[in-house]
Amino acid sequence: MTVEQAVAKLLELQKKLTAYNHASGLLYYDGVTTAPKETSDVRGETLTILGEASYILSTGEETSSLLDFLTEHESELDEKTRRIVYLMNKELRELRSIPMNEYIEYQRLINDAQAVWHKAKDENNYDMFEPYLAKIVETHLRFAAYIDPSKHPYDVWLDKYEPGLNMAKCEEFFSVLREKLVPLIKKIGEKPQLSDSVIHGDFPVEAQRKLSDRLMEIMCIDRGHCGIGETEHPFTINFTKHDVRITTKYHEDDFSDSMFSVIHEGGHALYELNTGDEYAFTCIGTGVSMGIHESQSRFFENLIGRSQAFCELLFPELQELFGLEGYTATDFYRAVNRAQPSLIRIAADELTYSMHIMVRYEIEKMLMNGEVTTKELPATWNRLYKEYLGVDVPSDKEGVLQDSHWSGGSIGYFPSYALGSAYGAQFIAKMREELDVDECIRKGDLAPVNAWLTEKIWRHGSMYEPAQLLEMVLGVPFDPTYFTDYLTKKFSALYEL
Amino acid sequence: MTVEQAVAKLLELQKKLTAYNHASGLLYYDGVTTAPKETSDVRGETLTILGEASYILSTGEETSSLLDFLTEHESELDEKTRRIVYLMNKELRELRSIPMNEYIEYQRLINDAQAVWHKAKDENNYDMFEPYLAKIVETHLRFAAYIDPSKHPYDVWLDKYEPGLNMAKCEEFFSVLREKLVPLIKKIGEKPQLSDSVIHGDFPVEAQRKLSDRLMEIMCIDRGHCGIGETEHPFTINFTKHDVRITTKYHEDDFSDSMFSVIHEGGHALYELNTGDEYAFTCIGTGVSMGIHESQSRFFENLIGRSQAFCELLFPELQELFGLEGYTATDFYRAVNRAQPSLIRIAADELTYSMHIMVRYEIEKMLMNGEVTTKELPATWNRLYKEYLGVDVPSDKEGVLQDSHWSGGSIGYFPSYALGSAYGAQFIAKMREELDVDECIRKGDLAPVNAWLTEKIWRHGSMYEPAQLLEMVLGVPFDPTYFTDYLTKKFSALYEL
Repeated sequence: MTVEQAVAKLLELQKKLTAYNHASGLLYYDGVTTAPKETSDVRGETLTILGEASYILSTGEETSSLLDFLTEHESELDEKTRRIVYLMNKELRELRSIPMNEYIEYQRLINDAQAVWHKAKDENNYDMFEPYLAKIVETHLRFAAYIDPSKHPYDVWLDKYEPGLNMAKCEEFFSVLREKLVPLIKKIGEKPQLSDSVIHGDFPVEAQRKLSDRLMEIMCIDRGHCGIGETEHPFTINFTKHDVRITTKYHEDDFSDSMFSVIHEGGHALYELNTGDEYAFTCIGTGVSMGIHESQSRFFENLIGRSQAFCELLFPELQELFGLEGYTATDFYRAVNRAQPSLIRIAADELTYSMHIMVRYEIEKMLMNGEVTTKELPATWNRLYKEYLGVDVPSDKEGVLQDSHWSGGSIGYFPSYALGSAYGAQFIAKMREELDVDECIRKGDLAPVNAWLTEKIWRHGSMYEPAQLLEMVLGVPFDPTYFTDYLTKKFSALYEL
Repeated sequence: MTVEQAVAKLLELQKKLTAYNHASGLLYYDGVTTAPKETSDVRGETLTILGEASYILSTGEETSSLLDFLTEHESELDEKTRRIVYLMNKELRELRSIPMNEYIEYQRLINDAQAVWHKAKDENNYDMFEPYLAKIVETHLRFAAYIDPSKHPYDVWLDKYEPGLNMAKCEEFFSVLREKLVPLIKKIGEKPQLSDSVIHGDFPVEAQRKLSDRLMEIMCIDRGHCGIGETEHPFTINFTKHDVRITTKYHEDDFSDSMFSVIHEGGHALYELNTGDEYAFTCIGTGVSMGIHESQSRFFENLIGRSQAFCELLFPELQELFGLEGYTATDFYRAVNRAQPSLIRIAADELTYSMHIMVRYEIEKMLMNGEVTTKELPATWNRLYKEYLGVDVPSDKEGVLQDSHWSGGSIGYFPSYALGSAYGAQFIAKMREELDVDECIRKGDLAPVNAWLTEKIWRHGSMYEPAQLLEMVLGVPFDPTYFTDYLTKKFSALYEL
């Protein structure tokens, strides 16, 4: 076999894996959008069989030999191929460390757990979901020991979503947030609260759907390759860079809920849609990590979407859709930036959001340390919400059952949200050196913003490790005080501190 | 390998093939319901790769040896396993006769052709679609010669949708219809036309969606395993017996259009949903042929749905949904049975419907004979519509482009519709010997009808060849005069001949 033949074989294999990913992703998407209620079992069977085929493609003897051959000839490979080989080798090592039957069993567990979580949340019945979560936690502990027994299990999973992240870095990061934000939140709590009555009322879903379309248009999202669906919990899924779906959930009493979901998921979608064409159908053709991904989604949601300029741009259109008589754009800006400790993460304001993440980080750490059992989780959740946010949790539906992540097997994902928010604040500071961002927003033309992000971040896909990418974009190390400074300035002005 | 092990391996293989079928089916379904417009290419890539894997599973050396082994031990197998081996051997012989690259190429062609057909129909542009259709026809001629060079190519494809069917049987069948129905249609044309004004008006889609739900309820369709979507052209797809989807299209000016689509597709769905559990995840766990399938869909659409009793049952509910003041159930019965030569097959009445099929049969026969080219098709179509139905075709959109079948590679399918209608008439005659069908309908309880069909037809799935099944159900040979007698009686009364 020549190196050229081996590279062709590698790309062929990557294309096959992309296809399996597409099919499995669509099965998942169908399950949470369109599928009849009682079809989860059979979908699980199909996902198991496709997962098995994909597992064999990723870890089989043929792939292993191919990767060994290419690794031996590393010096003859171009940068892109080297990166694919690196990523595949990493995945192969991880997957091979997990016995295939356990891996397949886990896929089935996740499929079932998601269906049960939906039901349990609907019925506010944590006990229904608990046995599934217990198995998911147990599997994460077992798999972490397979993947890297020298590491703390939680470090294994943090690294999965944000390569290079570990508990030590989290503690450092969260301590900055704690030091700067907790006093700020406290001070704001002593001030008169901002009114958010403008976003509350009766807003027909049909009008909200129109708003979603308009938001995607303002964000320059290519609708030919990006659809929008409706689910219990908003998310983004990329079958390939050419077919991305976002979802939202409409609440008739508050249009801003779905509005910011659409902007948030739209940010994820933009990243995927704009990865380089030369990386399509390979493992490089997707966002590099959850932290970087959340930096993009939360960039659009908060730094753009919750800015004064964006609120001014959008307000006349909101009035056309929803009435909102007697209110001004400034009322709207203040409403969507009302900072108040609350129960639901995805509805949380920009300032207190990180507290929600810190609760989940503490819980995941305890679960991975064996310091808390899944049976004790509601009590622990409620205690931490009281401690971090000062709120009483009235039901598990609004508490421990609110997020889909754990039911989907994502333990270690949550810190990426806070990290992403902080990355974003440093990105926009850098962007402002080259671009009048507010002027773009006022003109309703985000194309220059997208062009900057494409050039610096999106087009690279997974070509570089997150830390390397950050350095390429910023030129200086990551510094969370950009984020805390931004929040301090914005919220001091809003609350006249 | 013991026989027991071989059977286990066979069932495992069947389960895998079902999973690939599920995934590919869902990709197709997504493409025509939810997917963003410009994602057809990438879906084609994925379908190609899954198709290749499925092809290898069906035709690979391992499968071939397994089938050889089981064939040698045929006497030790139970009836079900013998049938699976027979069907797999048949498929393996067919698939193996087609070179793999040509098979894969064809899957891609179909994916592209369907997307182009949608656009071509929208834009009334046959020239856009013609090159794809030309390739589809050419492929059908080439593949037919691979599969069975001793047969006429059209006989190969007729047999594919209705095992045992050929041109000779079609000619015989259609000649009965021609002899009995053409004079009847002519006589009716001379009588005053029935009014159908009750079904025309302005009917909001939301109310029509409610009607769909209600119809599925009356038909006892298990919604936990059967969804409904909206597409350009209504169809039914079964991922497995546990997950079936039907689709419809709502026309705001005529609620009966979608109404009868839902009943028709609902009939297909009932068949699939009620195949025996013991056949699930095997190739027996699905309807046996397109003729039998259409006999079920058209049974519900016409013999039930267009009966006086059903119209009486439904009319008060239709009034609640749509108003329809000043009309009676009889007006509605007469409206949905108005017999008039027309342009669109799926909107055609029960009496003239077969004429639409005969046009398509003649065209397919000519295409397979090389007597007409795809370039000449619009002219031929329009000529035959004039000849068979006496109507002038104003546009290709309402002519040769109206059906999705050819774009999906279904040549030889159409005769099943007429055949199915005729089977159905003989089934209901038999059913009436044991059951007061009209009484069931009047009571709004179709459960006894479904139970009869389950017992006689549905539960058997593909266990028996169509001819064998017909004999089991009827006890006498298939006789199309049941159909022509039924139509003569029904329409003579309606038109007071």
